[in-house]
Amino acid sequence: MTLHPFDSITDAEVRLTGKLIKDHHSGSYVHFTQLDRLDPPKKDMIKYLDIERYGGDLPSIARRTYAYYYLDSKMPLYKAIVNVTYGHIITSSPVSDVNAGPLLPEDLAEIEDLALKHPKVLAEIAKMKLPSHIKVAIDPWMYGTDSLDVKEPLIQCYTYLKVDHPDANHYSLPVKFCPVFKLLSKEFVRMDYLPAGFDEKTVATQPWMEVPAVEYHPDLNGETVLRDIKPLIVQQPEGASFTIEGGKITWQGWEFRAATNAREGVVLYDVHFKGRSLFYRIALNEMTVPYGDPRAPFHRKQAFDLGDCGFGVNANQLNLGCDCLGVIKYLDTLRINRDAEPIKLTNTVCIHEQDYGILFKHVNYRNGNSIVTRRREFVIQTIATVGNYEYIVNFVFDQVGAITVQVRATGILSTMPIDQGVQVPWGTNIGPGVMAAYHQHLLSFRFDTRLDGDKNTVCYDDYVPMDEDPVLNPYNVGYVGKRTIIEKPGYIEQSPFTNRTYKVINENVINKVTGKPVAYKFEMPAKQMMLAQKNSFNTKRATFSQKQFFVTKYRDDELYAAGEFTNQSTSDTGLGVWLKRDESVRNTDTVVWPTLVLTHPPVTEQFPVMPSDFMQFLVSPASFFERNPALDVPLANNNFNKSKYYEETNGPSANPASASCCKTTL
Amino acid sequence: MTLHPFDSITDAEVRLTGKLIKDHHSGSYVHFTQLDRLDPPKKDMIKYLDIERYGGDLPSIARRTYAYYYLDSKMPLYKAIVNVTYGHIITSSPVSDVNAGPLLPEDLAEIEDLALKHPKVLAEIAKMKLPSHIKVAIDPWMYGTDSLDVKEPLIQCYTYLKVDHPDANHYSLPVKFCPVFKLLSKEFVRMDYLPAGFDEKTVATQPWMEVPAVEYHPDLNGETVLRDIKPLIVQQPEGASFTIEGGKITWQGWEFRAATNAREGVVLYDVHFKGRSLFYRIALNEMTVPYGDPRAPFHRKQAFDLGDCGFGVNANQLNLGCDCLGVIKYLDTLRINRDAEPIKLTNTVCIHEQDYGILFKHVNYRNGNSIVTRRREFVIQTIATVGNYEYIVNFVFDQVGAITVQVRATGILSTMPIDQGVQVPWGTNIGPGVMAAYHQHLLSFRFDTRLDGDKNTVCYDDYVPMDEDPVLNPYNVGYVGKRTIIEKPGYIEQSPFTNRTYKVINENVINKVTGKPVAYKFEMPAKQMMLAQKNSFNTKRATFSQKQFFVTKYRDDELYAAGEFTNQSTSDTGLGVWLKRDESVRNTDTVVWPTLVLTHPPVTEQFPVMPSDFMQFLVSPASFFERNPALDVPLANNNFNKSKYYEETNGPSANPASASCCKTTL
Repeated sequence: MTLHPFDSITDAEVRLTGKLIKDHHSGSYVHFTQLDRLDPPKKDMIKYLDIERYGGDLPSIARRTYAYYYLDSKMPLYKAIVNVTYGHIITSSPVSDVNAGPLLPEDLAEIEDLALKHPKVLAEIAKMKLPSHIKVAIDPWMYGTDSLDVKEPLIQCYTYLKVDHPDANHYSLPVKFCPVFKLLSKEFVRMDYLPAGFDEKTVATQPWMEVPAVEYHPDLNGETVLRDIKPLIVQQPEGASFTIEGGKITWQGWEFRAATNAREGVVLYDVHFKGRSLFYRIALNEMTVPYGDPRAPFHRKQAFDLGDCGFGVNANQLNLGCDCLGVIKYLDTLRINRDAEPIKLTNTVCIHEQDYGILFKHVNYRNGNSIVTRRREFVIQTIATVGNYEYIVNFVFDQVGAITVQVRATGILSTMPIDQGVQVPWGTNIGPGVMAAYHQHLLSFRFDTRLDGDKNTVCYDDYVPMDEDPVLNPYNVGYVGKRTIIEKPGYIEQSPFTNRTYKVINENVINKVTGKPVAYKFEMPAKQMMLAQKNSFNTKRATFSQKQFFVTKYRDDELYAAGEFTNQSTSDTGLGVWLKRDESVRNTDTVVWPTLVLTHPPVTEQFPVMPSDFMQFLVSPASFFERNPALDVPLANNNFNKSKYYEETNGPSANPASASCCKTTL
Repeated sequence: MTLHPFDSITDAEVRLTGKLIKDHHSGSYVHFTQLDRLDPPKKDMIKYLDIERYGGDLPSIARRTYAYYYLDSKMPLYKAIVNVTYGHIITSSPVSDVNAGPLLPEDLAEIEDLALKHPKVLAEIAKMKLPSHIKVAIDPWMYGTDSLDVKEPLIQCYTYLKVDHPDANHYSLPVKFCPVFKLLSKEFVRMDYLPAGFDEKTVATQPWMEVPAVEYHPDLNGETVLRDIKPLIVQQPEGASFTIEGGKITWQGWEFRAATNAREGVVLYDVHFKGRSLFYRIALNEMTVPYGDPRAPFHRKQAFDLGDCGFGVNANQLNLGCDCLGVIKYLDTLRINRDAEPIKLTNTVCIHEQDYGILFKHVNYRNGNSIVTRRREFVIQTIATVGNYEYIVNFVFDQVGAITVQVRATGILSTMPIDQGVQVPWGTNIGPGVMAAYHQHLLSFRFDTRLDGDKNTVCYDDYVPMDEDPVLNPYNVGYVGKRTIIEKPGYIEQSPFTNRTYKVINENVINKVTGKPVAYKFEMPAKQMMLAQKNSFNTKRATFSQKQFFVTKYRDDELYAAGEFTNQSTSDTGLGVWLKRDESVRNTDTVVWPTLVLTHPPVTEQFPVMPSDFMQFLVSPASFFERNPALDVPLANNNFNKSKYYEETNGPSANPASASCCKTTL
C-alpha cells in the first residue's frame, strides 16, 4: 500500500535510517535515543492535499526521518535527518547547546538496575537495617535543571521501599536518599539526601522505622468485599459509524488523518468538517510538571514528559474492554530501542464512539411535540505512563463540528518522605511517613489553523457592560462584544470576567448570515499558570507555562512549544524564541498554542492511586456555519436506541407515594 | 405505603389542600398558581433521620403543604400553609409587597389564546398584510421589572409568524409589536413596539416583507439526506446497579432520597456516601436569564424560570430511548391546574447509569502489569421547557464520592426582529430579519451541608508562590496553600489566578492522615457574573447573580436565592436579605449557594435549534477520606465489558502502513 506523506514511520524506514547512520559512523558505538518521521514541508503538503481533495496528479514528496544519538557514550548529542525515500543522509551533526537528549525506557532501566546494585547505594540501604520482607525500588528520573553547569545527561534515582510483591506500591515508602548517576558513563556522581522535616535540612541515613504501605493492588489493598456493580455493555450491532482506511478517518462529517509518533503520541492532520478545512495539524506537543516543594533536591522535579521521554515511546498498550468500551479500533506505535531496532507497541491509540446524553432538544409546549437528537461522540484516546503518573489524552469530536480536548491525570502521586508529626505548607500527608508535594500539570497543545484556507487571523472577544445611556441603555442592562485582533506573535492574557473568548477567524470568508468573518472559538476555563517565579529555571524553560494562549506565524519544524530538546534545558528554545520575531500574524498562516493547566494540591482520595482528575477545553464553531450543521442527524427513537425500563431488568420497585394514582373521594 | 417526610406531595394531599382552601374562601373564585409540599422543620427532621439510620422510634412529623392563589381575579396574592396530616389550614393570608405570583401554563395559554383573537392585535396583524399561508404565534412572557409602579401581574406577548405547520419555527420570524395584558382581568394594557434598527427607535407596523424561516422540524428544514449513524445500544443484562425503594436511592455507596416538586424540579435529601453524611439537601433553586439588548422593551426580558413558573411545572415528560439511554428508572411530578386539581406529569426525572471512560489506572512499567477501573456514573436528570429554551439538569454521581452538577442549555434562542442590513453590537444575526440578543444564564444551586454532622465551616484555599528565600526556596519554585475561613454570611470572591478553591470543612473531624479537618471542595470555573449594572433591576432582583459562591447560616424556609416570590419582583428578598444578618457562620449549620453562569453571545450554529451548551461544576471530597474510597471497585476486564474489535463489526480495514509487521532484510 502506498504510503501517505502523513502516515507514521514504517518498520522499513526505521531500519533504513538506523543502518545509514550506523554505516556513516562505522567504528563508533551509536546509542540512539529517538528516531521517527519528520513532517513534510508544509508548502509541498498543501499542494498535495489540494490535489488529493480536488483532483490532479499527486506530487511525490520524499519522506524524511530524524534521529538523535550519542557516539561512543559521550557528549555531544547528534541529530541526523535522513531521506528514506531515496535512502541517504541529508544532515548529520552534533547539536549545540543541548545538555541531554531524550531518554529511552532502556536508558532509564539500565540506570535503575545499576543503582540497585551500586556499592554506594547498597551502603545506604544497609544503614536502613531493613527487615527481610522489604525490598528496594528505584524510579529513575530526568535530572531537571538548576544551573548552567551541567553539560551531560544525569539521572536522579528516587528510591523507595516495598513489600515483596511485583505490584507493591513503593511510592508509599519513599526513602531519604537519592543517588545521581551520569547516563552515558554510568558513573556515580553523588548521593543526594531528601529533607523530611519542616525545613530544608537533611540527615544521614538512619535505621528504617517500619510503617505500613498504602497499597492499591487487589492482593494487598485490604479490600475484602468488592462493590457489586453490574455490567454496562455498549453494543453496536450494525458496527461503528466511523471508517478508517490506512490513516484516513471519517465520522459524521469529520475527515482527518491520524498518525502515531514517538514524541507526541498521536497527531491529527488535515482536519475537515462537512467539507470545510479547519486544522492542518493538531497535537499535544509538550507538557511539564513542576513541583512546589522548594527544598533541594525537589526543586529539580520538573519533567517535560514529551520532550524528555516521549508520549508515544511511553504509550500504554491498551486492552479491549478495560481502557476503551464498545467497538474499538486500535492504532499502533513504532518506537526504537538504543540500537534503532523497531519495537512495535500495539494498541496505543483506541478509536471508538460513545453516547453522551442529549445533543439538542425542543418541545413545542403548545402540542407537546418534541424533537430530540442524542449526542454521539467520537473519541481518539491515548494513554502514556511516565513513571508514577498516567495521562489519558482524549480528542473528542461531536456532530456539530466541535472538538473537546480532554486530559485525565491518573496513576500514582509522586511522593516525598516526611517524618511523623510533621506537616509542610507545600504538600499533603497521604500516608504514614509519606507526603505528596503540591505540583502543577501544564500541557501545551498546538493547533495549526487552516480555517477555510491558509490565511487566518487570531483575535479575542470580550463582553462588557454598556455605559449608562439614558437613550440607548436607560435601564442599565446592555452589554456588547468587543473584538481585539492579534497583530504580532504573542499571547492573549486571560480575562474571565469579561468572558474573554479566544477565536480564530478567516477575514476573507464572511458568514452570509452574521455578516462577519467565519470563526472558531477556543473556550478554556481561566486557570492559574506556572507558580514558580519568573526568574526560576522552571519558568525560563517553558514559556508556554506562563500564559494560556499563544499565537505564532507558521514555520516548518516549529512543533514543540518549549523547543526541540527539553531534557536538562536551561532556556526555552521554542516559543521563547519564536515570540520575539517582529512580523505580522494577521491574515496569514497562523498557529495557536493553548496551554491546559491543573494546579494540583494532592488529597488523600488520590492515594494510593488517583481517580482521574479532568482538564479540558473546547474548540467549537462560532458562526462558522450559517445554521446548526447537525440538523441532518436523525431524531432519537427507541427502536434505534433500545432503552429499557428499570422495572424490566431489576423488577418492580415500590412506587414513591407521590406517583400514586389513587384518588381520594373528597 | 407510609409516606416519608421527604416524599413528594401526593394526589390526596393536593386535593385536601385545594378543598380546605376553597372551603375557607367559599363564595370566592380561587385561582391557584402553585401548590406543593413544604419541607418539614429541619430540627425535627434531623432527629427523624438519625433514628432512621441508627435506630429508635420514628417521631411522627406532620406533613404540610403551601399554596399561592388569587381570589376573584384580583390582587393581592394569597399564601396558605396547610397541615395535611391533620387536615387543617395553619395560615392563610395575603402576601405583602408581591406584585405577581408564579404563572401556571394555563395562565399563559389563556393569555396566548386571548391575544391571538384580540382586536388590537388583529389590527396590527392586518397592517402586516400577511400571505394566507403565514400564521401568527405568540409566546406569552412574564413581564419583568422596570419600575416600582406595577402592582399586578402583566403578561407581555412576544409575537411571531410561522408557516402553517404545527412545529414551524416561529422564533425565526419575530414581528415588531408586542401586546401587553393584565393577567387577572385580561385587559389589554398597551401595544409595545420593538426596535429593529441599530438604535432604540420603533416604527409603526408595516406590511410584512417575506423572508424564509430557518426551520428545525424534519418536515421543513430542507435536510434531504440524513446522516448515516449506526445504533449504539447500552445494555445492562444483569440489570442496573442502583436500587430505588420509594424515594430512597442507593448506588455504589451513595444513599439519598429524591423527590420532585413544582418549583425546583427534583431535590436530593439526606445524601450520604459510604455511610458518611454529606448534604442535607441539594437542589437547583433559582435561575435568571437577563438579556443584554438595552432597548425597551427588551430590558424587561429577565425570566426567573423557577420562581416565575417552576421547573417541575414545566418539566418534560421524558421518552425512553430519546432523552435517556440504557436502563432507565423514571420519577413523576405532580403539579396542579388553576383549580388545584392534581395533574400527574409522568417520567419527569430519569435515573440511570452510564460509563464515562477510565476511573483510575496505573501500569507498573517494569513488568507491564496494570490495574484499570472504569468510571461508572449515576445520573439523575430532569429537563424543563420554558418557552423557547430547554434546560437539562444532571446530577452526576461517581464512585469516589463526587457529584458533578451539569446543566445543558438547548432548545431555541430567543429572538428579536432586525431590519435587513443592520447589525447591532449586543446581538447576532441568525437569519433573515432575525437577531438573537446576547444574554446570560445564571443558575443558583443550594447545598445544605452536613459534612460528617451539623457543624460545618466554609473556607477557601488559595495557592500562592512562596517568597524568594535563599534558604528555604533557593530556586524560586515553591508554592504553598493559604486558607481563609468565612466567619459571617457573605460571598467568596473569585480568584482563578490563585487557584482559589471553595471548601466546606468540619473542624471537629480531623482526617487522621493529613492531620487537617475533613473537607469537600466546590470546584467551579471562574466566570463572568451578571453584566447588568449594579443599579439595574436585573441585579437588584438577584443577588445570587453577582457572585459565584455564597454562605448563609441555615434557617427553615430559606430555600430560594432570590426569594420566595420572583415574578415582577423589584428587589431580592432572599440572599439580599439573609446576607445582612450579623451572625457567625463558622462551625454551625451552614448553607452554600454556588452560582453557575453562562455568558451567551449566540452563534449561528445555535439556530434554529441549539446544540447543548454545557455548564458544570464539581463537588468532590478533598481529604475527606483517608485514602481512595474506590479501591473496592472491581478491576475492568473484557469478560465483564464485552467490547469488540472494529474489524469484527465493520470488517477488515486497510492497516496503516506503520502497523505493518513486514520487515525488510537490510
